[in-house]
Amino acid sequence: MSEQIFGAGIWHFATYVDRYATDGYGEPRTVLDAIRLAGQVRDLSVVDLNYPFFGGDFSTADVRAELDRAGLGVIGITPEIYTRVFRKGSFTNPDPGVRALAHELVTEAAGVVREFGADYVKLWPGQDGWDYPFQVDHGALWKLSLDGVGQLASEHPDLRFVIEYKPREPRVHMSFDSVARTLLGIERIGLPNVGILLDFGHALFGGESPADAAQLAIDYGRLFGMDVNDNLRGWDDDMVAGTIHPTELFEFFWVLEKNGWHGAWQLDQFPFREDSVEAANLAIDFLKRVQAGLSRLDRAALAEAQANHDALTALAIAQAALYG
Amino acid sequence: MSEQIFGAGIWHFATYVDRYATDGYGEPRTVLDAIRLAGQVRDLSVVDLNYPFFGGDFSTADVRAELDRAGLGVIGITPEIYTRVFRKGSFTNPDPGVRALAHELVTEAAGVVREFGADYVKLWPGQDGWDYPFQVDHGALWKLSLDGVGQLASEHPDLRFVIEYKPREPRVHMSFDSVARTLLGIERIGLPNVGILLDFGHALFGGESPADAAQLAIDYGRLFGMDVNDNLRGWDDDMVAGTIHPTELFEFFWVLEKNGWHGAWQLDQFPFREDSVEAANLAIDFLKRVQAGLSRLDRAALAEAQANHDALTALAIAQAALYG
Amino acid sequence: MSEQIFGAGIWHFATYVDRYATDGYGEPRTVLDAIRLAGQVRDLSVVDLNYPFFGGDFSTADVRAELDRAGLGVIGITPEIYTRVFRKGSFTNPDPGVRALAHELVTEAAGVVREFGADYVKLWPGQDGWDYPFQVDHGALWKLSLDGVGQLASEHPDLRFVIEYKPREPRVHMSFDSVARTLLGIERIGLPNVGILLDFGHALFGGESPADAAQLAIDYGRLFGMDVNDNLRGWDDDMVAGTIHPTELFEFFWVLEKNGWHGAWQLDQFPFREDSVEAANLAIDFLKRVQAGLSRLDRAALAEAQANHDALTALAIAQAALYG
Amino acid sequence: MSEQIFGAGIWHFATYVDRYATDGYGEPRTVLDAIRLAGQVRDLSVVDLNYPFFGGDFSTADVRAELDRAGLGVIGITPEIYTRVFRKGSFTNPDPGVRALAHELVTEAAGVVREFGADYVKLWPGQDGWDYPFQVDHGALWKLSLDGVGQLASEHPDLRFVIEYKPREPRVHMSFDSVARTLLGIERIGLPNVGILLDFGHALFGGESPADAAQLAIDYGRLFGMDVNDNLRGWDDDMVAGTIHPTELFEFFWVLEKNGWHGAWQLDQFPFREDSVEAANLAIDFLKRVQAGLSRLDRAALAEAQANHDALTALAIAQAALYG
Repeated sequence: MSEQIFGAGIWHFATYVDRYATDGYGEPRTVLDAIRLAGQVRDLSVVDLNYPFFGGDFSTADVRAELDRAGLGVIGITPEIYTRVFRKGSFTNPDPGVRALAHELVTEAAGVVREFGADYVKLWPGQDGWDYPFQVDHGALWKLSLDGVGQLASEHPDLRFVIEYKPREPRVHMSFDSVARTLLGIERIGLPNVGILLDFGHALFGGESPADAAQLAIDYGRLFGMDVNDNLRGWDDDMVAGTIHPTELFEFFWVLEKNGWHGAWQLDQFPFREDSVEAANLAIDFLKRVQAGLSRLDRAALAEAQANHDALTALAIAQAALYG
Repeated sequence: MSEQIFGAGIWHFATYVDRYATDGYGEPRTVLDAIRLAGQVRDLSVVDLNYPFFGGDFSTADVRAELDRAGLGVIGITPEIYTRVFRKGSFTNPDPGVRALAHELVTEAAGVVREFGADYVKLWPGQDGWDYPFQVDHGALWKLSLDGVGQLASEHPDLRFVIEYKPREPRVHMSFDSVARTLLGIERIGLPNVGILLDFGHALFGGESPADAAQLAIDYGRLFGMDVNDNLRGWDDDMVAGTIHPTELFEFFWVLEKNGWHGAWQLDQFPFREDSVEAANLAIDFLKRVQAGLSRLDRAALAEAQANHDALTALAIAQAALYG
Repeated sequence: MSEQIFGAGIWHFATYVDRYATDGYGEPRTVLDAIRLAGQVRDLSVVDLNYPFFGGDFSTADVRAELDRAGLGVIGITPEIYTRVFRKGSFTNPDPGVRALAHELVTEAAGVVREFGADYVKLWPGQDGWDYPFQVDHGALWKLSLDGVGQLASEHPDLRFVIEYKPREPRVHMSFDSVARTLLGIERIGLPNVGILLDFGHALFGGESPADAAQLAIDYGRLFGMDVNDNLRGWDDDMVAGTIHPTELFEFFWVLEKNGWHGAWQLDQFPFREDSVEAANLAIDFLKRVQAGLSRLDRAALAEAQANHDALTALAIAQAALYG
Repeated sequence: MSEQIFGAGIWHFATYVDRYATDGYGEPRTVLDAIRLAGQVRDLSVVDLNYPFFGGDFSTADVRAELDRAGLGVIGITPEIYTRVFRKGSFTNPDPGVRALAHELVTEAAGVVREFGADYVKLWPGQDGWDYPFQVDHGALWKLSLDGVGQLASEHPDLRFVIEYKPREPRVHMSFDSVARTLLGIERIGLPNVGILLDFGHALFGGESPADAAQLAIDYGRLFGMDVNDNLRGWDDDMVAGTIHPTELFEFFWVLEKNGWHGAWQLDQFPFREDSVEAANLAIDFLKRVQAGLSRLDRAALAEAQANHDALTALAIAQAALYG
C-alpha cells in the first residue's frame, strides 16, 4: 500500500453555532486559527477551505503562509453559498439577483482554486431545495440546479466541480439529495468536469450503502472526492469516523481500493463539544485500522462469498481482517 | 374534470401473512374471491393482477369470467418474482438458473398482458438487493438488474414494462430503491418501453417528495403508472390513502394534473386487519375530496406563490381548496 | 365551546442561526421586537419568554411595557439552560460549577415567573444527554437530571415546573427523551409541582402518537402545558402546525377536549425563511379548522368505533368532521 | 471471567414467511427440527421455546427428549399471543372472548415453564397497539395492557413474567413500545415478578441507547432477561449481532457487567436467507470478541473519562479493548 494522504475540511477546526447555543460552542476562531489546529493533527496533509475565509479579512497570501507553517496543502475550495443571503437558495433562489450572487461567489472561488492549485471547487448548495409541500415548482427548481452548475462548469473547463449531495439540512429537502439524483443531473449537464464529492455520512443518512454509492459514482466516472464521518443514520451528525459504523466504513474503503481509487481520505466532522485535534486523531487512528484491515483482507475468499451473496462468510472474512 | 378511472392491486383484497401471524390475518382467498370483493368497491374500474393467479389452478378464462362479472378490467400484470425460489433475488440471483426462472415467469406474464390487453408488465424485484455490508459486489448486482429488465424489454417491444421502486423490504436494501436510481437505470437500458410505476408511499418512505418524484419521472417521459396509499415515512405500511399525508397526496395529484398526466389512480393498500372493501371505499372517497380540491385550486395564485417559493401562501391556497 | 386561548413561544418571532448560515436567517431581533411582532398575530393572547431576555439588557418592566402595548400575557418563562456554558449539560454537566449556574439561572427564572404571574417555569435541558456510546455513566447522568429538577421544585413549591421532553437535538440523545421516560422521572421525584409540557412535534419525532402521549400524561395528572407545530417525523422541524399531520393534530386536540383539558393552545414553530407573523396566522387558522371540526365530531359514533378498534369507521367520522 | 451461558430463541432455527414470500423462505420446520439445528451451534446452552410447539402435535415430553439429545436447556416460554385470532390484540383485544383466550394461552405457557423449570414466561404482545390515528381510546387500551399482565402475574406469584417491548411491527404502534413505558407500566402493576426482557435491537430501533435502557431497567430491579441481534435502526431487522453496531453492543455488555448482571446472553435473530446454525455461530463468535474486549477494558481510565463526559478518550479506550 502506498502512502495514504489524509485531509479534512477546515471547518472541522472551527467552532459552531446552532439554533439553541446561539453564542456558540466555543470562542470564535479565524481560518488561521483553524489551520494552526489542523497542523497539530497527526498525519494530516491537505484541507478543504471555505471561501470567503472566515473570521477576518484575510488574503490568499495570509492563508497560504499559515498553511505553509502548518505543512498543509489545499485540496478544494468550498464557496459559502448557504449563508443568509442564500437562505432561500443559491442556484435555485427565486430571485435572479441572488442567483447571480451565487454565480459570482463560485467564480471567485474558482480563482482561489487556481491560486492554490487545488483539485476542485466544491459545491454544496445546502439551501437549494424546499421545506413544505406545494412550496415550489419541482421541475423548475431542478432545472435551475442543473443550469447553475452547468454554466459554471462550462465557464471553467480547466477546473473540476464536485457536488456534495445530502438528503436534507438546513432545508427539509435538498435538491441534490442522493448519489443517483446527482448522477442523473450530472449526466444531463453532460460536461466532463462535474463530479461527486461523496460524503460517507450523507450516504448513510440517505439510506444508501456508502459502498454501493461509491461503486455507482465510480462506474459513471464521477467520483472526484470523498470524505468520512459517522452518524446514527437519521441525521447528518458528523460524528467521528469509525465510532458507529465500522463495518460499512471498511466496506466503503474496500470498494475504493478494489476500483483503484486513490484520492485523499478526508474528514468532514463537526466536533461541537470535543477537542477538534483529538477528534481528527481518533478518526485517523481508526482509518489506519481500516488500512491495516484492508491489507489483511482475504480477497479471493471474499470475492467468492460475494459471488454467492453469502453474507455470513463475507462478514466473517471482513471481521477477521478488521478486528485482527 | 373528465371521468377519473380508479384501480387497485388485486392483492388489496387478499388476506396476508407475516412472520408472526404465520396462520394469516384471515382465511385464505383465491384470486377469484378477491375479484369478487374488488367488484363491491364503489367506483373501481381496473385491477392489477398477480401472476401466477393465487389460491388455485385458474385459467385466464376463469379469471376473465370473474372480472366480467365484477365489471373490472385489467391494467397490469405483476409476475411474482419475489417468492421462495427468488428469495436471494430474481434478476440478480447469484444462481443463473434462478435468473432464467425469473425471465421465464416474466415472459409468461407478458403473454398474459397481451391476453388481457393490459397496459403493462409490472416488475417489482423486491428480493433483488442485499441485507448486509460486504454481502455483494455492488457493480455486478446493478448490472444484473439492468440486464434482466433490458433483455425482457427488448424481447417484447410491443409491451410496456414498469419498474416499481422501493427503498427496502423484504431485503434490507432493494436495488431499484428510488426514482432517481431507477431513472438512471432506465436511461442506461435505453429502451422506450421501460418506465416507472410510482408508488406514493414508497416515495414517502424513501424520503422523497412524491410530487417531485412524479415531476422527475414525467420530465424523463417515464411515468407509466402510479398508485397511492399512506404510511408513517419509516416503513411501507400500505395504509389507507389520505389518512396520514393529505397535503402531500394533494400536491402529488396536482403535479399529475398540471402535467396532463391522465392515467388510472390506483390503490396499493394492505388492509391487514380491516375490511378490504371498506378500506378501498375510504381511500376512494378521499381521492374524490382531492379531485374536488383540485377543481377549487387557485392555479394562478399558486403559480405565483411557487415562483416566490412562498410556502405560507401556497399552503393557504392548498388548504382552502382541500378543506373547503 | 368557550373562547380558546392561543399562545406562542416568543422565539417564534426571533430570527435564527444554524451551523451553516452563521450570519443568521435575518437581522437579529430583540425580545421587544419579537413581542411587537407577536402582537400583530390575529388571536394571540399569551407568550412564553426566554430568560435572560434576548437582544439587549432589558428589565422586566421594559418587557412588561412592551407586552402591555401588544396586548399579550405571559404563560411561562424558559430559562436558557442550553447556551455555550451549558454545552455539556445543565443539570447533568460534569462540572458541578456549571450545574450550580444552571440552578442559579432557573432560580432567577422562577422569580420572573412570579413577577409576571406566569403559569410555570419551563425546563428544556436540551444539552443534557450524550452523543457517543461509552461517553457517559447512564445511571449517574439520569440521577443528576432528576436531582436537578427535584431540588428546584422543592425549593419553589408555589410554582409549577414543566419539563419539555425531546428525543434529541442538539445532543444526539437527550435525557428527557419521551413522555414515558419523563413521567418515570417525575414519579421518582415525587413532587406535585413537576409536570410535562407536551410538544406535539417532539412526540411525532419520537415515534409516539401525540394523542396517546397526552392521554398518558393526563392520566398521571402531569399535563401542565402543550404546544404544537409539525415535522416529517425524522427531525424536530418546527414547521407550521397542520401542514403535514392534520389527522394526528385533530386527534391530539380531541383527546385534550374529551379529558376536559382546557389550557392554552401554543405554537412552537421556527419559521426560518418565512414571515413569522404569517406563519403564526396560518397555524392558528388551521387550529380554528380543528376547533370547528371538534364541534362537528360525532362523539357517540366515534366512541363506538374506538370500542371496536374500527379504524375505518373512526377515520371516516374524523374526516367528515375535519374536512367538512 | 466465569463461563458465559449463550442462548437463543428457538425461532432462530425455524423458517419464515412474510407478506411477499408467502410460500416461505424455506421448507417448514417443526420445533424438533429447530432444536436439532440449535444443537449444532457451538456453545449454545439454552433456548426460549414458542408455545404451542410449532410444526406438529408435540408433547412436552417429545420436546424434552429432543432438547436432551441436543444438550439444551429451556430458559423461557413464549406463548404465541400474536397469531390470527389475536390479530387485533391479545390483552387489549376489543373482544373480551379473545382476551380470555390470551389469558388461557399464557396460563398454559406458565404450566410449561414449570414443567421445564424455565426462568420465565415471555410476553410479547406484538398485536397490542394501533395502526391509525383515532383508532383506539388510548387510556382504555393501556389499562387493558396492564390489567392483562397484572392478572397473570398475580395468579402465578411463583413465576417471573418478562415483557419484551418493541416500538412497532406487526402493529404500526405497539403498546409496550419502550423501556420507559414498560417500566412505567410495571411500576403501576406493582408486582415483584414482572420484569423486562430487553432486546438490544428493539432498543436501537426505538432510538434508545441499549446501554442506557439496560441501566434503567437494572436500576428499577426489572432486567430479567436480554437478547441481542442487529439492525439499521429503522426496523427490527433481527440481523446477526455485531455486524452493524459493535460499539453499542460492546457498551451494552459493559453496562451489564459493571452492574453484576449475569444472565444468559441470548440471540434473537431471523436469518431469512442464511444458514441458521452459521448465523448463530457468527454472532457467538462476535460475542466472544466482546467478552475478550471486556477483559481488556481499562476500567479506571474509562470511569474517569465518563466522569468528564469525555467521548474521545472513552472511545479510544473502548476501541483499544475491542479491536485488540
